[in-house]
Amino acid sequence: MQNDKIAELLERIRNHNPLVHSMTNVVVTNFTANGLLALGASPVMAYAKQEVADMARIAGAVVLNIGTLNETEVEAMLLAGQAANSAGVPLLFDPVGAGATPYRTNTARKIVRDTRVSILRGNAAEVANVVGQEWAIKGVDAGEGDGDIVDLAKKAAVALKTVVVITGETDIISDGKVTYAVKNGNALLTKVTGTGCLVTAVIGAFAAVESNLLIASIAALVSYGIAAETAARLKGAEGPGSFQIEFLNQLARLDGKQIRELGLFERI
Amino acid sequence: MQNDKIAELLERIRNHNPLVHSMTNVVVTNFTANGLLALGASPVMAYAKQEVADMARIAGAVVLNIGTLNETEVEAMLLAGQAANSAGVPLLFDPVGAGATPYRTNTARKIVRDTRVSILRGNAAEVANVVGQEWAIKGVDAGEGDGDIVDLAKKAAVALKTVVVITGETDIISDGKVTYAVKNGNALLTKVTGTGCLVTAVIGAFAAVESNLLIASIAALVSYGIAAETAARLKGAEGPGSFQIEFLNQLARLDGKQIRELGLFERI
Amino acid sequence: MQNDKIAELLERIRNHNPLVHSMTNVVVTNFTANGLLALGASPVMAYAKQEVADMARIAGAVVLNIGTLNETEVEAMLLAGQAANSAGVPLLFDPVGAGATPYRTNTARKIVRDTRVSILRGNAAEVANVVGQEWAIKGVDAGEGDGDIVDLAKKAAVALKTVVVITGETDIISDGKVTYAVKNGNALLTKVTGTGCLVTAVIGAFAAVESNLLIASIAALVSYGIAAETAARLKGAEGPGSFQIEFLNQLARLDGKQIRELGLFERI
Repeated sequence: MQNDKIAELLERIRNHNPLVHSMTNVVVTNFTANGLLALGASPVMAYAKQEVADMARIAGAVVLNIGTLNETEVEAMLLAGQAANSAGVPLLFDPVGAGATPYRTNTARKIVRDTRVSILRGNAAEVANVVGQEWAIKGVDAGEGDGDIVDLAKKAAVALKTVVVITGETDIISDGKVTYAVKNGNALLTKVTGTGCLVTAVIGAFAAVESNLLIASIAALVSYGIAAETAARLKGAEGPGSFQIEFLNQLARLDGKQIRELGLFERI
Repeated sequence: MQNDKIAELLERIRNHNPLVHSMTNVVVTNFTANGLLALGASPVMAYAKQEVADMARIAGAVVLNIGTLNETEVEAMLLAGQAANSAGVPLLFDPVGAGATPYRTNTARKIVRDTRVSILRGNAAEVANVVGQEWAIKGVDAGEGDGDIVDLAKKAAVALKTVVVITGETDIISDGKVTYAVKNGNALLTKVTGTGCLVTAVIGAFAAVESNLLIASIAALVSYGIAAETAARLKGAEGPGSFQIEFLNQLARLDGKQIRELGLFERI
Repeated sequence: MQNDKIAELLERIRNHNPLVHSMTNVVVTNFTANGLLALGASPVMAYAKQEVADMARIAGAVVLNIGTLNETEVEAMLLAGQAANSAGVPLLFDPVGAGATPYRTNTARKIVRDTRVSILRGNAAEVANVVGQEWAIKGVDAGEGDGDIVDLAKKAAVALKTVVVITGETDIISDGKVTYAVKNGNALLTKVTGTGCLVTAVIGAFAAVESNLLIASIAALVSYGIAAETAARLKGAEGPGSFQIEFLNQLARLDGKQIRELGLFERI
């Protein structure tokens, strides 16, 4: 795994504009769609039980995000997830706020039980709660807490038979056997709502063009992190509003040269 | 039809701040409201079946957009559309993603059957699917495809007894007898989510102050296109984030002088 | 009450990052979350009846906003409001568009009847309609109208046994006995959607760290107003897009020095 590979996958996204079907929360829909467009992917959002399976089958990746879940949407998420599974479409799951309320925790566990999630992406507390480990959480945004995040990622990957991505100051990616750490990123991402949700969708875009989901995840996190670093360098001092807009610019402007110079990840 | 007329209609919007009732998708609500406010119109969004008819009756225009449709909202859209019809309020319809799934296609056809749509706005694939012509589509964003767009616009206008607006590199507006092409606009609009949805709402704002809906549509597309051109010239090189924000600025700053100098449309 | 107190409360928000549970409308979710994050609070949005009470109990403040209300959400809002009441969590209510349709007016009155609202924030027309006074309204945004706003605030506070905040060119805050006017703010706020909704959430953030709700409200309005003034001074001339982004920057950059120099309020 080299930065060259990441640059190649980014080119593939820009050449093929993979359709990423996101069933995400009402807070981040616009930012998610604009982030995917900036990167070069094609966002689509569809929530009705009458159409989610049809949309999932024609997508390059399906993303389920329970940030503002309700009964009707969860039912549709299961249909979309199962349709993605049947069609061999990568299924990503972002268990926003798992652990914050029993309903979220239980729903997250139902989703990993009733569908085959290809990639689970959350913060440490969310991932811990999905697999039934204790972890402190406040609302839906916190979740660093204590504990060994690398160990958690590995165990969760084994338990769920999936690739697990735990984002934080360092991002950990594991399929249970092989584990990587990605160092790219910037703390300003935590001052903009939906940057966690968007990264899951961006991993989806990479998973749509690369069947090795460990590689797809690393490539997405490195790309995303470099765009954030560049945006922070150019506009971070102005504040989170300017950073958010520049981050969209940088997702669009990211190129192979930047990736080769700045990509920072290692097998651990 | 002259650019002077367009400038005059823009002034009317700014003097009267027409209320545009948008029942739109969850991805573009914020951008639609901010775009309408920037232009000088008053956005309102209401979705509950208990109030949509009341809101539609006091609006200057009603916009239905099925981008993230569900059963409950479609039911409310029909109520709003019928109330708009009864009250003589222009009814706009944006059949987002018609053709992408059977549910979308069928719902779009139900809306044009059970209400009297005043203006239908979509890309070529969406319009084709509403009227039952074959057209390639991917997700909800593509839809240039092949085929004679001018012919499609005319036929759809005749079939639906409505003004049809097909947006793309060149925008085509037809009532079935008279057809116009608008050349204003910029490709960066395709890199920002919701620019198609917003243009439908902007046509609604013009339709609220001009009863000739062909003229209202042309005026809206020229105004919108010039704002996009100016934004692209000033900030396009920075990326889609900066362009999006500058586009809102330019919707607010657009004036008669720009329209007279830059408006580019012709009868075809 | 001095500007020093406001500066101290802002510091408290930044040190404690209070969780503000917003059940708000689909137009403003993203802007509300980003505004709260910029200020230093932790936003959470949850709408499902299965979890709103759990979320409300762990929140520092709960905000109900009926901008795009529907039956299901109103039911959940009542559950969240009652849970906040039982747990002693401040409950804020933003009756968006009360008076625009009977459904909104009736729902707003139901909410103040079936929960104990700690702080009601609206424009004059909305507040008047909640308490049953006549007031002109157009859609959900207007509502200056005529009438004595100070008198309305006092009467509404007495009638509802709550703190009432009426925002406008001058903001009026009253608990029925003590009444303040806040002069900070900028007219550009009216050109960005959701600035009224966000200010209610920001009052919630201050209410989470200050039990005197009159003081919390004044502190929030002064802080918000200064951020708007600074943003308008720096970027207002560019247009509402740039202003919106700079406003988020300024919510993050606001400091005690600015508050002490620019805070402008008085008891009336």
